[in-house]
Amino acid sequence: MEIKDIIATIKKGKPNIKSVYYVGCGASQAELYPAKYFLEANAKTLRIALYTANEFNYATPVGLNEDAIVVTCSLGGTTPETVAASKLAMEKGAAVIAITNNGNSPLAKACHHLVVHDWEGSYSAKMDKMNKALLVAVEILNQYEGFETYDAMIKANQAIYGIIDDAVKSVVPAAQTFAEAYKDDEVIYVMSSGATHKVAYSFSICLLMEMQWMNSGSFHDGEFFHGPFEITDKDVPFILLMNDGRTRAMDSRALTFLERFDAKTTVIDAKDFGLGSRVPGGVAEYYSPMIISAVLRIYAEQLAIVRNHPLTKRRYMWKLEY
Amino acid sequence: MEIKDIIATIKKGKPNIKSVYYVGCGASQAELYPAKYFLEANAKTLRIALYTANEFNYATPVGLNEDAIVVTCSLGGTTPETVAASKLAMEKGAAVIAITNNGNSPLAKACHHLVVHDWEGSYSAKMDKMNKALLVAVEILNQYEGFETYDAMIKANQAIYGIIDDAVKSVVPAAQTFAEAYKDDEVIYVMSSGATHKVAYSFSICLLMEMQWMNSGSFHDGEFFHGPFEITDKDVPFILLMNDGRTRAMDSRALTFLERFDAKTTVIDAKDFGLGSRVPGGVAEYYSPMIISAVLRIYAEQLAIVRNHPLTKRRYMWKLEY
Repeated sequence: MEIKDIIATIKKGKPNIKSVYYVGCGASQAELYPAKYFLEANAKTLRIALYTANEFNYATPVGLNEDAIVVTCSLGGTTPETVAASKLAMEKGAAVIAITNNGNSPLAKACHHLVVHDWEGSYSAKMDKMNKALLVAVEILNQYEGFETYDAMIKANQAIYGIIDDAVKSVVPAAQTFAEAYKDDEVIYVMSSGATHKVAYSFSICLLMEMQWMNSGSFHDGEFFHGPFEITDKDVPFILLMNDGRTRAMDSRALTFLERFDAKTTVIDAKDFGLGSRVPGGVAEYYSPMIISAVLRIYAEQLAIVRNHPLTKRRYMWKLEY
Repeated sequence: MEIKDIIATIKKGKPNIKSVYYVGCGASQAELYPAKYFLEANAKTLRIALYTANEFNYATPVGLNEDAIVVTCSLGGTTPETVAASKLAMEKGAAVIAITNNGNSPLAKACHHLVVHDWEGSYSAKMDKMNKALLVAVEILNQYEGFETYDAMIKANQAIYGIIDDAVKSVVPAAQTFAEAYKDDEVIYVMSSGATHKVAYSFSICLLMEMQWMNSGSFHDGEFFHGPFEITDKDVPFILLMNDGRTRAMDSRALTFLERFDAKTTVIDAKDFGLGSRVPGGVAEYYSPMIISAVLRIYAEQLAIVRNHPLTKRRYMWKLEY
């Protein structure tokens, strides 16, 4: 079923939804963030929250009831905490939408409505999860409250794949430069703002810590000046993710500071890929995380090559019970 | 005016509040988190969100209107972004409560209702900011929706100061051991869950990065198993903050993993200080962040002593325009 029809079906049974809960773990939690950010910014009456799955399971919000939509997400659909959260949400009477790449997975079976996203085959396919999660949010907002920028959001949601495929064609040289420069660093900081805030988080905890065993920290670049910036010094390594949108002023302020003190700075800027001109209507900020994430994937791949540490290498995940 | 009376006054003028927004920067944002966590977990109809101040200013949510309560927070009351957010909230017609230690500060003048918190003089005074923010949340919930555990929350809100003063008497030796063990580490990770999640964050970005210029990262310990745990190895330094409450199972799971692989692990456990027995009624989880924060302050002080790096030392903050 199309996402638009899923929400229409839910609305028939539940015309008075109060809460929308997003639930996932790690990268899948982070990939729900643009949807959460969009809804929290634009919803006039809906209540919005985002949880790592076991926090949702152990400290379940009282708002989880028949007036809630719960969106759960897991790439392979086997993440135990997320499957448990999806089942819990069904027991509590919520309408449950699961987003996964595997339509036969435990998560796919623990939901009322299934959204299968692409993954293999291209960099834009890897952004289908994040983009479909955002589309679910757009449909929820438009059908329950009305949303005047709906048409622009839908057009952008369709156009983003082509923009990503174009963007990634040209970034390998910059990614190689990054990889050579950062391959031996003791720690790498990643920061951003707005819809891209959790892309910084997931690059830090998944691509660097999990897949490269490199030390890393991440934070919102609006928070940079309220603590973390004291670590800044010549050659301290940062990755700054710059949005095309309202929060860009925060990204720019952080960049100015990093450059002033000669920090080792790599910028991934949504504006470098023509996002704003190809996604008109003031909605580029909501699609900045997709294009930046896709580009970052190539940066991670080049880092893996130069460090001779494949992105699939693990010591614990998939190998142990824990 | 008492906090209870502030909320009663707001309710007289605004009986139909829809949204409660928390706005601050750095440590002050983190100290609003227990209140946000409490309301998000327990509110049946109120909408809750927490922002770093400039994100609130640049990407202002459409829900910021006359049906909102906005709680802003800044220790000295001079944080420019937070003062701007407080003014913006007033312009939009929201009821604005400012929490600050300085009743004559710009923030104190940019609000409808002022809550002055203690700071100097004791470790429990340093927790007055976080505790008063939580009390504001408890009063909002009880007066607008009703809250059956109200009495237990109020008793705990009063008792926590004595519990903290007792707790800190005995922790210096453990803090000295910690300081000696971690003083030369290249990076220190801090994690927790539940109401204490952002205590891990603020210890990482403020105490370690800002005040000690030490590298650090932080994340939710429920997220640990979805990325960061791959960094775990013998002697990799972690600080784990354990709650007395529903999310403790996540903290315990992380501890088991850290011990299994001989990570360098320091635990601050709310249960070690008798929190649950002195704060009955199932509300200890909401007061775990206060006791853990107070104890952590002593850990930071001992680290500062052994590293000969005072907690007040800065290279940029208070010294430059940025």
